[in-house]
Amino acid sequence: MTNAKPIITLTTDFGLRDHYVAAMKGVILGICPQASIVDVTHEVSSFEVAEAAFLLSQTWTCFPKKTVHVVVVDPGVGSMRRPILAEVDGHRFVAPDNGLLTAVLTREGCKVRHITSEKHFRHPVSQTFHGRDIFAPVAAHVASGVPAARLGPRIDNYLRLTFERPMRTARRGWTGAILHVDHFGNIVTNIPIAEFPHIEQHPFEVAIGFRIVEKLARSYAEMPAGELFAIVGSSGYLEISANQDSAARLLGCETGAPVELRLL
Amino acid sequence: MTNAKPIITLTTDFGLRDHYVAAMKGVILGICPQASIVDVTHEVSSFEVAEAAFLLSQTWTCFPKKTVHVVVVDPGVGSMRRPILAEVDGHRFVAPDNGLLTAVLTREGCKVRHITSEKHFRHPVSQTFHGRDIFAPVAAHVASGVPAARLGPRIDNYLRLTFERPMRTARRGWTGAILHVDHFGNIVTNIPIAEFPHIEQHPFEVAIGFRIVEKLARSYAEMPAGELFAIVGSSGYLEISANQDSAARLLGCETGAPVELRLL
Amino acid sequence: MTNAKPIITLTTDFGLRDHYVAAMKGVILGICPQASIVDVTHEVSSFEVAEAAFLLSQTWTCFPKKTVHVVVVDPGVGSMRRPILAEVDGHRFVAPDNGLLTAVLTREGCKVRHITSEKHFRHPVSQTFHGRDIFAPVAAHVASGVPAARLGPRIDNYLRLTFERPMRTARRGWTGAILHVDHFGNIVTNIPIAEFPHIEQHPFEVAIGFRIVEKLARSYAEMPAGELFAIVGSSGYLEISANQDSAARLLGCETGAPVELRLL
Repeated sequence: MTNAKPIITLTTDFGLRDHYVAAMKGVILGICPQASIVDVTHEVSSFEVAEAAFLLSQTWTCFPKKTVHVVVVDPGVGSMRRPILAEVDGHRFVAPDNGLLTAVLTREGCKVRHITSEKHFRHPVSQTFHGRDIFAPVAAHVASGVPAARLGPRIDNYLRLTFERPMRTARRGWTGAILHVDHFGNIVTNIPIAEFPHIEQHPFEVAIGFRIVEKLARSYAEMPAGELFAIVGSSGYLEISANQDSAARLLGCETGAPVELRLL
Repeated sequence: MTNAKPIITLTTDFGLRDHYVAAMKGVILGICPQASIVDVTHEVSSFEVAEAAFLLSQTWTCFPKKTVHVVVVDPGVGSMRRPILAEVDGHRFVAPDNGLLTAVLTREGCKVRHITSEKHFRHPVSQTFHGRDIFAPVAAHVASGVPAARLGPRIDNYLRLTFERPMRTARRGWTGAILHVDHFGNIVTNIPIAEFPHIEQHPFEVAIGFRIVEKLARSYAEMPAGELFAIVGSSGYLEISANQDSAARLLGCETGAPVELRLL
Repeated sequence: MTNAKPIITLTTDFGLRDHYVAAMKGVILGICPQASIVDVTHEVSSFEVAEAAFLLSQTWTCFPKKTVHVVVVDPGVGSMRRPILAEVDGHRFVAPDNGLLTAVLTREGCKVRHITSEKHFRHPVSQTFHGRDIFAPVAAHVASGVPAARLGPRIDNYLRLTFERPMRTARRGWTGAILHVDHFGNIVTNIPIAEFPHIEQHPFEVAIGFRIVEKLARSYAEMPAGELFAIVGSSGYLEISANQDSAARLLGCETGAPVELRLL
């Protein structure tokens, strides 16, 4: 363990009205009093594993190495689904084995363990709140310097989600989908800019909802208020936005809806 | 004071849109810069003392000893209701004397003081925001090591709520009530499992809303999605849930509604 | 830098569902691991610069000197609007130059800089998320002890909002406006008590919505539940409230609506 204060992030669907998140934090601080705990969000839609996986993928690389990321969206709590610990690029992740860590698990060099060391749990372990009884205490022990190897054996048959990637559906056409709609109504598609550098130089159109979007903006502010445009978002994906307005509301679109990209 | 960083928890009905919670945190950090502040919730329904008392009762034992818990749901702010400091089992609690601390005050060995030491307040003390001007600074002084005895005299005529307990209404029947509905729609009844161990072995039925629930699940995941069942919740009370669905919505039930338990 | 843990406050319109706030916190902790980060609010209405400016004005003086306050409500992100750093009374402020810091910039002795030092940014700088790429890292460097002068040159042509002040519209009458409606429905007017000490001694009436309010309460609790009254709020402004009820709902009033004060 270094001298730097250990950081633990929390991503859950527990909401902010109940005591669940605070119970996890109390358990963490009891084991690792010097921890700095950061909420990613507790407003993941209930049981929406894919949404949490996206939010985690956008966040963890902003944190320094040695951070421990706890992710609990857990419809299978109390079942045989395994708790896992993943390590990649100096970061550690604690979550149920249900696909939450997909963005991490597909990274080269990722090591995954089945967490089996019950002495690092909080007892008695309830059947309904493993966030408090398994994931929080394990994360706190890891943050305190307990070596990963003590928590359980390596496994390689963990679950990964297959995030829908854009499919080539014409010589110069791809069909993708909406990955996320944010608080402002910005639409994040699953079209990774790095793989479509053309659109920054060539004319293109994006068909979404019943509309065609043809303009690529460099910033929100350069567009008239209320007009729809495409933009290279901070996510690294192609996003559809409207300056000072909600693109999702204007288009009537939700997560999962199709998006077509055509290079002209 | 030990070397461990002092922990202060906050439970209020102030919401997250305004500046009220941050004002309290600023005051705390000005007095006790090393404090680690944990939000329990700020989404208690406005003025709902009993709801806050329940959430506190579910949280404080997860925190390490020496934690200072601040609870401010305070319809009587500015009136003669007293600010109190309670100590039990190594934990400290700061709140208005209106029943918020009931779960703590009924513990054996609890010592309660009327907070009268104005030099530990923030001045001028407003008539409308004692969270900032009394409770936050007092909690910070206590967390910094000021002995409880300096804050005011011992009292024993403090207020306690009488939480409705299940009443025996038949030879093998009890009538209870809904204590809390959580973010997922799980229904927490006021039937303490420890006093009804029978239901884990004997057939029973729970009448709630217009429905009879007869199944006891060991975990959410073992039940089909959408089916209602009883479960031993992480709260220690009997809960009514539906796997990946909201039991409260399915039953049309709210906090306070009656629940009948019959052992068959 | 002193030994005290640096404090950084965050005020944004990013909401709590997305990863944006956590991304900022990760960047801050990567640069200044010992920082204590306090959320003021992330629920500012989208793009409402004036609302954020009010909330900041109510909060910053509660924090100890040396605190760094980050405020990001930024409809102009990616445009030529400048990032600025302000220093006053030992506090530091980082924000876009769009009026957010008005309450601070009008203080005597305030020094303002245009933040130009790109080596203190996170690279690559996106066109849509300067909270993560400019404001968070700059705040963290300032909190870590980087002198303000290293971040850019002094300027004095920064933007200030003209908050609407009450106008004298009769010999003993003033027309003001609603500055803020809080979570409880309390109405904060823009009538500063310090400039109207009369109302604590003389009869007055406040016309708001279709109602006349004539009573001045010393505390919420002294009034019958549901009755409207004026009160000297914790904000330092005249507020209109209803004990255990929402004055804004009773009056059907929103931010910006007119308020008339008449001294009788």
